[in-house]
Parts: sequence; structure tokens; C-alpha cells
Amino acid sequence: MTAHLTPIRWCDDDSLELLDQRWLPSRRETLRIDTAEAAAEAITAMVVRGAPAIGITAAYGVVLAARQATGPEWPARLDAAMTRLGASRPTAINLFWALERMRAVITAHRHADAPPVERLLETARDIQRQDLADCLAMGAYGAELLAREAPKAVMTHCNTGALATGGHGTALGVIRTAWDRGLITHVHANETRPWLQGARLTAWELAEERIPVTLAVDSAASLLLAQGKIGWLIVGADRVTANGDVANKIGTFALAVQARHFGVKVMVVAPTSTFDASLASGDDIPIETRESRELTHQGERVVAPDGIDIYNPVFDVTPAGLIDVIVSEKGVIESPDRNSLAAWLDASDPGGFA
Amino acid sequence: MTAHLTPIRWCDDDSLELLDQRWLPSRRETLRIDTAEAAAEAITAMVVRGAPAIGITAAYGVVLAARQATGPEWPARLDAAMTRLGASRPTAINLFWALERMRAVITAHRHADAPPVERLLETARDIQRQDLADCLAMGAYGAELLAREAPKAVMTHCNTGALATGGHGTALGVIRTAWDRGLITHVHANETRPWLQGARLTAWELAEERIPVTLAVDSAASLLLAQGKIGWLIVGADRVTANGDVANKIGTFALAVQARHFGVKVMVVAPTSTFDASLASGDDIPIETRESRELTHQGERVVAPDGIDIYNPVFDVTPAGLIDVIVSEKGVIESPDRNSLAAWLDASDPGGFA
Repeated sequence: MTAHLTPIRWCDDDSLELLDQRWLPSRRETLRIDTAEAAAEAITAMVVRGAPAIGITAAYGVVLAARQATGPEWPARLDAAMTRLGASRPTAINLFWALERMRAVITAHRHADAPPVERLLETARDIQRQDLADCLAMGAYGAELLAREAPKAVMTHCNTGALATGGHGTALGVIRTAWDRGLITHVHANETRPWLQGARLTAWELAEERIPVTLAVDSAASLLLAQGKIGWLIVGADRVTANGDVANKIGTFALAVQARHFGVKVMVVAPTSTFDASLASGDDIPIETRESRELTHQGERVVAPDGIDIYNPVFDVTPAGLIDVIVSEKGVIESPDRNSLAAWLDASDPGGFA
Repeated sequence: MTAHLTPIRWCDDDSLELLDQRWLPSRRETLRIDTAEAAAEAITAMVVRGAPAIGITAAYGVVLAARQATGPEWPARLDAAMTRLGASRPTAINLFWALERMRAVITAHRHADAPPVERLLETARDIQRQDLADCLAMGAYGAELLAREAPKAVMTHCNTGALATGGHGTALGVIRTAWDRGLITHVHANETRPWLQGARLTAWELAEERIPVTLAVDSAASLLLAQGKIGWLIVGADRVTANGDVANKIGTFALAVQARHFGVKVMVVAPTSTFDASLASGDDIPIETRESRELTHQGERVVAPDGIDIYNPVFDVTPAGLIDVIVSEKGVIESPDRNSLAAWLDASDPGGFA
């Protein structure tokens, strides 16, 4: 397993190196970043994407800001940097969760003469390390669910692999672990319009590991799900609300509706850093819409007429009722709803939501 | 209404002019064709596409072959041309229906010294004229269904407009007629991967007529259908079998599953030339798969890794049970199934299927 493939690497010269995911798989370029502003821009531009990876990048962005924040106003300068990083993308809660962890360190050192750079770096590294450990734990929990039945194919959407996380992956981490244990026979990856994370990133990660993958357009899902060969739809999450609703890549809702129709089970794989107890339901999640050009152009080629209305939401919300199981690093929640989620969180973490 | 926009025009110099739909909307190029072989290649390459338009093009292709078929072996040469045209694309039955109409003319003149070029041209022109008349009739029938309720938005998939027919369109013809009568408020066009007929052709046709259209990725359908603003999913067909199953553009099946989940009604609009009584169910329809490049490349840009399996079916089959109504030029079939379809066809045409 290439569990150590990571899109985010802190370098000895105190810069951040990001694998530029905009050009994969045709070009493998990296980007060196040394300011929080550049980190925020990289998140907005999707140099790095995937809820956990965004959180990790933002944490390192705070370290970059701290290195440059001198003078007695350093706390205000870090506040401004965190505000900027927090505005880079709206939907994934991991971004805000990571910034809150960084903020706790800053608050504890608020009266020092200089920012606690080393402590912040250690916290960012810990967020990244912990994410990899969480992914491995989720992989094991998810694989146990698959082990209940004879091996079948699975379908996944978007990219939730090493490229989206601290390593291994969330939904794709479950697929990796399950493949290693002989629990799945094949992976169906949807191309995932408009950004083609499935084609460009997921198919690439699976091909690198020689896990058999078939790529199809998103709208071929019913044709595939109707054939009875696919046992599970396995997806990640950008935010899970208190009632178990799940924001994830556009198309997840459509796939969950189809999976229910065909009796295919739906597994959401998300670390508890993705859970947002402050929101009662998915109706409250801010859904990012991105630029029209993602639909109107392919490179320089125009593929839609001028002047029409373009609707380009890049996430949607799948109601908890369509989700069979949520897998986190703390275990498994079957038939998620407000009560099961609250009870599970109480049991797994007396302090409530992560 | 630009009912006279047509992708297919017979020219005074006895050549066929096709609007090259591969480059719309960025380039408006036409292609002059003067052999049956070139007509078959144009159909295969999707210079012209859409079930009725393919049938019309094939009919003119027979005329082109007839103009060049001299000598006593002319019937054999026309047979060969028709075989070639019939192999150009497998799924749409209109192609074979049009060729059968042309074959009937040839058979009637089989013992003549020369092919009946003028009679064949008149038959091809009649197929095209009749298709436009059928589209206008379907538009009226479909609009009557929409008139039963207060105006709402509709969703459509692929392109079923003037570009896909002899003019006006099938599903898009219903939308045109209904818009003119104030029966719909807005059109949601899915981009329709992989060939983007929705983005490139449908959005363009609607924009030309100033019918308000919003373009979205195919996988945004559940997000849109869940909002309650869309009353109907209106689609075309490439083949309708004896039990009411419908082959249509990849993604139609997925949309019908979602429409059923959200209580949105599904209307299939197809002239009876699309009906194929020889097939018991959709399981028997040959489904075309096209080249991997449609998924792996955007122009010259590589968007998928080398060496993986690509599944690129360009049609799927929606079971009759998910279809609320089929609209043809002869009227409306509600809740289509083997019995209702047989009874309706007996009543509308004592000779059975068209």
C-alpha cells in the first residue's frame, strides 16, 4: 500500500510542499508555499482538496503565518491569517476544526512575546499524523462491515484517498483495506463531474496500487447498480450534522437515492473531525458553488453557449435516511439519526462531538 | 419558434448538407456529403445524432447511393449501401425503420433498369417532413399533459430538439410547445456526459429561442428534483420495446429512478418509428459503447490514468415501470406496459406497430 503518498509535506526549510492536484494524472507538479495567504489560495484553487487534506493544509498555513508574525501584535496578525484561511472554502467542516485546534495553542500562549511556532508546527504535524491513524482505523472498521458478506464489487465517488487526507484515505481507505483482505472484487469509480476527481485522482490512486478499477460517467450508476454485482456505495463526507445528514461531493445524493432503489448499501466514511454538532440538519450546511467555467469550457474549448444560467454546486446533502452506516475512527454508527448519533457520540467520547 | 432549424438539408446539387454537431456551439460548420459511405461515417462519428435525425440521414444516404448505382447490378449495390448505413450505429431503431421504408421503394422497382432515384428522394423528403409533423403533434399532446397542472419547471437530458429530428424536436419539442403556451416556467438541462449534448446542443437551442434554461452536471439531479420546483422529467427515446421499456441516452435510467423517488413524473416523447415490437423487453436492445477517449481526454488533455478499464455505454434502458407516460405522434400512453402498449397500438393503428 502507498499509505505514505501524501499531497501535503512540511519541508525542512519551513515551507509547505503541495502536490498540485489540478494537473494529475497528466502532470505531477508540486507547489512550494511559504505564506498563509498562499495556503488559502491553494485551498480555494483546489491545488489541494478533500476535507481532511484541507484541514491539514490550513493548519500548516497557520504555522506559516506564525513564522512571519513578529512584534507585539502577533496575536492579531494570526487572527487575521486564520480568518483568511477559514474563508478559503465553505463546506468542509474539517477546515474550521483544524483552525480551532491551532487557535487553542495560540490562546494558551497569547501573552508571550512571540508566537509559539514550534508548538503550532507540532500541532499541525499531529493533525496530519492523527488523520493517517484515523484513516487506518476507519479502513479496519469499514472492512469489518464488508466481511459480513461474500466479496462483491463496490462503487465510489470523487476522491477520498491518500490525496484527500493525511494518507490512506477515508472511503478509499476502506476500499484499500478491504482489497488487501480479499473482501472486495472490483472498484467502480465515477468520473465525478465537473472536476473529475474520480477519473483524475481515484482511478490513478487505484491504478498505482493495482486495485482493479472501472471508470464510468456519473450517470451510468443505475445501469451498474441494477446489475447486482455491487454490494456497497462507499463515499466520504465534508460535514456530518447532528441528525446524520451528510454533505459530500455533488452527486452523492443522487447515488444514495439510486443505491436505495437497487438495495445497495451506503457507507459514509468520515473522521469525527467531519462531524458538526452545531448544525441540526443538512439544511444548515453552506453549499459552495464554483465558477461556471467548469461547465462551459474544456480547456479553451467552449462547450456551452454564452449567456445561459449555470448552476454549479460542488456539494450536496444526503439525508441520513438514505445512509446505512457511518464509519468514523471511533467505530460504526448503523442507521444514523439524531438519537443514534447522539448516543454513539456520548459513548465514544463523553465530551460530545469531536 | 425556430422550427425550421434542421441539421439535415438536401441541396439542389443533389448533395446532403449536415450541420456538424461535433463542434457546436463554438463553431457552426457544415459538411457536404455525396456518398452513402460518407453518410454512414457521419452517423458513426456523430456529425449528426439523435434517433430521428439518424433515420433521416440514412434515408438520404440511400438516395446518394442510388444516384451512383448504375448498371444492371444496381439493386445489389443499393443493398450493400443499406447494409453499410444500417451498421453505422446500433441502438436507435429509427435508423432501421427509415431504411425499411427506402427498401420498400427499391423492392417495388426492383426490375427497372435503373434505381428509382426520384421516388427515393421523395421518400426521404417525406420521412423528414413527416418527422417534423410528428414532432409538432407530439408537442401538442405533451403540452396537454402539462396543462393539467399549474406551470412548473421541467428537466431534460441529452438533446432531443431540432438538431436531433426533422425539426422542433421530440422531448424538446414538447418543451417548446409548452413554453409557447405558458405551461412551463423554466428548463433544467443536464450537461449529458460524456458527449455534452445537453450543454452544447440543448442549452444552445433553448438560448436561441430565449427559453430560460439552467445548465448543471448530470449528478446534480437529486439536488434539483428534491426542491419540488420540477414537475416533469421529459426525455426522448432511441428504442421502445413491446413492454414499454425505453432505451435512451446514458443517465436516463438514473434520472427516472430519482424522479420516482421524488415524485416527479417521467414523460418519454418518441414517434412510433422509435417503437420496436420485435423486442419483448429492453434486455434485448443492443447498447452501443463508444471509445474510451470520451472519458480519458478533454481535447488533448489527459484526465484519466493509462491502462485502466473504461466503461462507456452511451445508452441505458429505463424499465417501463418507471415511466409515467409515453407520448407519440398518435397520442398518449399512460402507465405503459405490454398490455397498454398493445391495446394502444391496436387502437391507433390497426396494422400494429409502425
